[in-house]
Amino acid sequence: MSELPPADLPQPPDLPHAEPHPNPAGIKRLAVLTSGGDAPGMNAAIRAVVRTATHHGVEVVGVRRGFSGLHRGDLRMIGPRDVANTIQRGGTVLLTARSKTWRTPEGRASGAAHLREWGVDGLVVIGGDGSFHGGYYLQQEHGVPIIGIPGTIDNDLYGTDHTIGYFTAVETALGAVDRLRDTGASHERIFVIEVMGRHAGHIALEVAVAGGAEEVFIPEDPKPVDGVVQIVKDSVAKGKASSIIIVAEGYPGGAQGVASAIEAGTGLETRVSILGHIQRGGSPVSSDRVLASRLGEAAVYALMDGTAGVMVGRVNGEVIHTPLHETWERRKDVSRDLYRCAKTLSI
Amino acid sequence: MSELPPADLPQPPDLPHAEPHPNPAGIKRLAVLTSGGDAPGMNAAIRAVVRTATHHGVEVVGVRRGFSGLHRGDLRMIGPRDVANTIQRGGTVLLTARSKTWRTPEGRASGAAHLREWGVDGLVVIGGDGSFHGGYYLQQEHGVPIIGIPGTIDNDLYGTDHTIGYFTAVETALGAVDRLRDTGASHERIFVIEVMGRHAGHIALEVAVAGGAEEVFIPEDPKPVDGVVQIVKDSVAKGKASSIIIVAEGYPGGAQGVASAIEAGTGLETRVSILGHIQRGGSPVSSDRVLASRLGEAAVYALMDGTAGVMVGRVNGEVIHTPLHETWERRKDVSRDLYRCAKTLSI
Amino acid sequence: MSELPPADLPQPPDLPHAEPHPNPAGIKRLAVLTSGGDAPGMNAAIRAVVRTATHHGVEVVGVRRGFSGLHRGDLRMIGPRDVANTIQRGGTVLLTARSKTWRTPEGRASGAAHLREWGVDGLVVIGGDGSFHGGYYLQQEHGVPIIGIPGTIDNDLYGTDHTIGYFTAVETALGAVDRLRDTGASHERIFVIEVMGRHAGHIALEVAVAGGAEEVFIPEDPKPVDGVVQIVKDSVAKGKASSIIIVAEGYPGGAQGVASAIEAGTGLETRVSILGHIQRGGSPVSSDRVLASRLGEAAVYALMDGTAGVMVGRVNGEVIHTPLHETWERRKDVSRDLYRCAKTLSI
Amino acid sequence: MSELPPADLPQPPDLPHAEPHPNPAGIKRLAVLTSGGDAPGMNAAIRAVVRTATHHGVEVVGVRRGFSGLHRGDLRMIGPRDVANTIQRGGTVLLTARSKTWRTPEGRASGAAHLREWGVDGLVVIGGDGSFHGGYYLQQEHGVPIIGIPGTIDNDLYGTDHTIGYFTAVETALGAVDRLRDTGASHERIFVIEVMGRHAGHIALEVAVAGGAEEVFIPEDPKPVDGVVQIVKDSVAKGKASSIIIVAEGYPGGAQGVASAIEAGTGLETRVSILGHIQRGGSPVSSDRVLASRLGEAAVYALMDGTAGVMVGRVNGEVIHTPLHETWERRKDVSRDLYRCAKTLSI
Repeated sequence: MSELPPADLPQPPDLPHAEPHPNPAGIKRLAVLTSGGDAPGMNAAIRAVVRTATHHGVEVVGVRRGFSGLHRGDLRMIGPRDVANTIQRGGTVLLTARSKTWRTPEGRASGAAHLREWGVDGLVVIGGDGSFHGGYYLQQEHGVPIIGIPGTIDNDLYGTDHTIGYFTAVETALGAVDRLRDTGASHERIFVIEVMGRHAGHIALEVAVAGGAEEVFIPEDPKPVDGVVQIVKDSVAKGKASSIIIVAEGYPGGAQGVASAIEAGTGLETRVSILGHIQRGGSPVSSDRVLASRLGEAAVYALMDGTAGVMVGRVNGEVIHTPLHETWERRKDVSRDLYRCAKTLSI
Repeated sequence: MSELPPADLPQPPDLPHAEPHPNPAGIKRLAVLTSGGDAPGMNAAIRAVVRTATHHGVEVVGVRRGFSGLHRGDLRMIGPRDVANTIQRGGTVLLTARSKTWRTPEGRASGAAHLREWGVDGLVVIGGDGSFHGGYYLQQEHGVPIIGIPGTIDNDLYGTDHTIGYFTAVETALGAVDRLRDTGASHERIFVIEVMGRHAGHIALEVAVAGGAEEVFIPEDPKPVDGVVQIVKDSVAKGKASSIIIVAEGYPGGAQGVASAIEAGTGLETRVSILGHIQRGGSPVSSDRVLASRLGEAAVYALMDGTAGVMVGRVNGEVIHTPLHETWERRKDVSRDLYRCAKTLSI
Repeated sequence: MSELPPADLPQPPDLPHAEPHPNPAGIKRLAVLTSGGDAPGMNAAIRAVVRTATHHGVEVVGVRRGFSGLHRGDLRMIGPRDVANTIQRGGTVLLTARSKTWRTPEGRASGAAHLREWGVDGLVVIGGDGSFHGGYYLQQEHGVPIIGIPGTIDNDLYGTDHTIGYFTAVETALGAVDRLRDTGASHERIFVIEVMGRHAGHIALEVAVAGGAEEVFIPEDPKPVDGVVQIVKDSVAKGKASSIIIVAEGYPGGAQGVASAIEAGTGLETRVSILGHIQRGGSPVSSDRVLASRLGEAAVYALMDGTAGVMVGRVNGEVIHTPLHETWERRKDVSRDLYRCAKTLSI
Repeated sequence: MSELPPADLPQPPDLPHAEPHPNPAGIKRLAVLTSGGDAPGMNAAIRAVVRTATHHGVEVVGVRRGFSGLHRGDLRMIGPRDVANTIQRGGTVLLTARSKTWRTPEGRASGAAHLREWGVDGLVVIGGDGSFHGGYYLQQEHGVPIIGIPGTIDNDLYGTDHTIGYFTAVETALGAVDRLRDTGASHERIFVIEVMGRHAGHIALEVAVAGGAEEVFIPEDPKPVDGVVQIVKDSVAKGKASSIIIVAEGYPGGAQGVASAIEAGTGLETRVSILGHIQRGGSPVSSDRVLASRLGEAAVYALMDGTAGVMVGRVNGEVIHTPLHETWERRKDVSRDLYRCAKTLSI
């Protein structure tokens, strides 16, 4: 065995320094909005939309407060300097809202009229499936080309491996678990921590594996809460100083229900933390910013290519397009491998 | 006006490179334990006790699991390498526990016997007023010299400006408030966040000022919860996008009670986060580590000086001694100035 | 010994719900600027000035880019909503700059004229001694009442226990030290880390104690770098896996000089990190925000009381006033106690 | 448009509660070591190896200090409790080292003898290509089945989309960039920040996109440094307050060289930060912990399946096997898409 050889590796690639994207659809001006619950990385997506468009000579109209603002006509031109120094910010500089008016044909007609007034050739909607639903009907009824960008912490959208905001929400919840671990290791106790996920256990499962939790309860697995009592007893028998149990908010009974079952079944002191909306905020982690940058760029290219009615997503590292309606008609399951891994490693 | 002159400043001080402390009490071996709820910085205090003692030729016995371990005889010698790489760790490497046996004379007699067996000349107790109470009776009944070090996140001990762990707990809660601020600024909503403090509002008040909260509820001020409804309405009228309300867990009804009152009185969507024991964990911030280092050093010097039955604390930057019983007989109020400041700045 | 009694404590204080400050000086409008190097917490200080003033019916003019902007007339009215959602932000929303023109009588005359035009009754200067110097001459030559607020990460201002930004800078540097500690504990090595402090070792010393460093080099102590070689050798002999050495940038030779001496003297692999301006940024920690809130409030009260030509500072928990010129004529030494503590605990 | 329908989604999957892996190779005991530079997440990988093995009745021998310790016989049995509370820790509890002796046939023979003495059926090597090289020869010469797990912050290993530690290193560097952004936005300046990457620009490129940098210099693209001068001038002309330039340590001249070129060409104040080994430490982010958990599990399954001489990696979400020698003979290029994206978005 010699030193690792100064490998005669293939030459590095000729990296692209600038690569203009064609614009067969002749897009001159597009609009962008954020809608539904906010998610860390939405600003990075807005920034990418604005800068990619500007780079190709396309103007951008920002719509404030989502479909609610679109209906009311809260629009303004935005340029590359308006999104300077926002990539690291939580929340959304365009603000967001939930709109009841949008569910009426009159509401959507009013929004479409505002887009026509402003000469907009296409609309980028950053949000979750409810927001895509709103965009879908705007395209169906008024012919506005819509491109969706998946922005939600829940990671429950079909058509993309991850949604913008998911990585940050996981990291926030994990920080809380690590802190419980410190105190748990010093002082024998059971901790139950409730994380977001009304319909899906993606966050809970990822946090359970990364946090080394003893057990995880998610909406997708209707196992009875009583099983946790035996798990906690086994943990104590194995000499574990404390147990950490992760519960997705959508699991029946939530953290409080699980904690009550444990206290009733074991008599051990059990403490509950409910993170709530904390998980929606914070500076986005790198993975969310990079995903948002890639998808913001791809959304503009899609409009320039004449594509419409799809969500841009990233699957296996590549950008793909999924018809908007599939994002709510199809289901993205939690990873079976990760679920098994959580069990194996909590030994 | 010229450039700021290269000021003819007084010479810098002759800084001490090594300064051995005298040992008139002839201490040869001391013991140290952590007791009650754990707090970030306890490890830094243990490290400071061990290293200061070693530096002066005094041996150290570590007691595991507080008075419970002392009663059961869970003691071992510890040296400077045993506390290496612990200053940044949350929790306590000596573990902690609450002991019912210690409340019996027999329990304390057993603990005193173990200390005699090990030839211990004094005991350093790191904890809160309950722990000092336990130490006080050990000294009264068995003559063991006790020095207390204030280690609790609640900052509610008379005799020190701050307790070890308080700064970190505030920082943890503040991180949560900042995250709510991100999402609140994007999406109009009311957030109610419950922080620790069963009997005292120190954490809640500091977090309210540092987090720019709209209102704070603490046990020390029995104002009715209904007042918050008007505050929230005024905030909306002033154009504030969202409101953040801090509630100490000791305020009657807690966060849930305050949130219910707001929803009932305003009809606005109100979200609750309950941080719970998260605030006990985490790597200690600098201020807690420095305080712990100074007080750990001071505790050893106090024993070497022949002092006993006191807590070492830091007041106005200086180490002072307070009789143990005063730490629970006297009251440390929240700062009136800070309370007024919280009101003035939430305009 | 019984349970800790439900102490018959003195009643809690009657806490102030609103306490208007008198305005004998009849201040109607004040101006505020940030100057020199920026520091985390400057926004919290601006916010406190604006909101305290507004609370008392005093209007506020914001000056952008410090004295440079004052000279050029870059002024605008600012209200409580303009500083909403800024308390957690690093940097300064008023921007800052260094101004050469201000050193000329003409520059200062132009600035004074702008303040008169805007009807300003007093100016709050947030910065370090250089900025106070600039304010001092404006008051001397043109009678503008000046109040200084200490905003600089270096903590080197006489008249306040801490400066705004110092706590955050320490925490940032400490985060870096903790990371080196992780890798150092796994892989035997020497790390030398350079922190800010051109003329003063406050940051370096605090980081050394909080980070458990083996040695610290500061401008105030002209000890030869060669001594570190023996310290590193002793560390290895004691079984320490790695050594962490803190160097203030103002120590002759800086981190690179110290690292070279160690490599030459021990032959051990030595790695250098130079943090640089990273320490100026970041969301301010709680202690900086609370200090900034208190001093911003106090600066407005000082003007309303008719005080001028002083810096507001916090000493032993109380707000005090120090004549501006003393802030650069007098010296704030590093703590002897802390220096000794650093030595004792690095055993 | 109606409310989003309560979609008649396909049923959730029947999630696996326990799934024993077959053991045709009859592995009874395996060994694990970490080697080369440490990386955050190595502990999570060790934990996953130990717990997966234990779960299947396979015993685990821990080797301390990598091949150096293997050669010297520094081995011990480790069980699930030994890796409790380590998943969140930086560094490696097994320690690591670089070994010169291992490059000799005698060194490797001694290591193989120790493995035979301990009855080890296979060895898991966690590290980079140099470590796999060491393992490869051990298998070639002595028939020890080797499985590699990619643990290095540099992300430069062929056969896996990401290496363990990469995500955390990116996040650490990004935190530094964000801090510079705060101060840069307040005070017009150029910042040059050097990140790790001696031979590859993966970290630099990801940080540049996530940090919104104006320019990035990586070893793979031999573009001249002079180009940056025009970029900085253009930035100023576009009204950007400051510029942030990322430089991988492997780019000729490093950060210092780039900064000198900028100062010479523009006359603008330019500040350098060199992060160095800080990027190797810190608590691993979620993505590194989950990757490490999956690959640790996969490594044990590979040995149980009778596989040897491969690295387990994750590509497109699936675990794959790559012959060890390919990890150093083949090249993993930086993403062309990301490189283009960095350019487009820095407009």
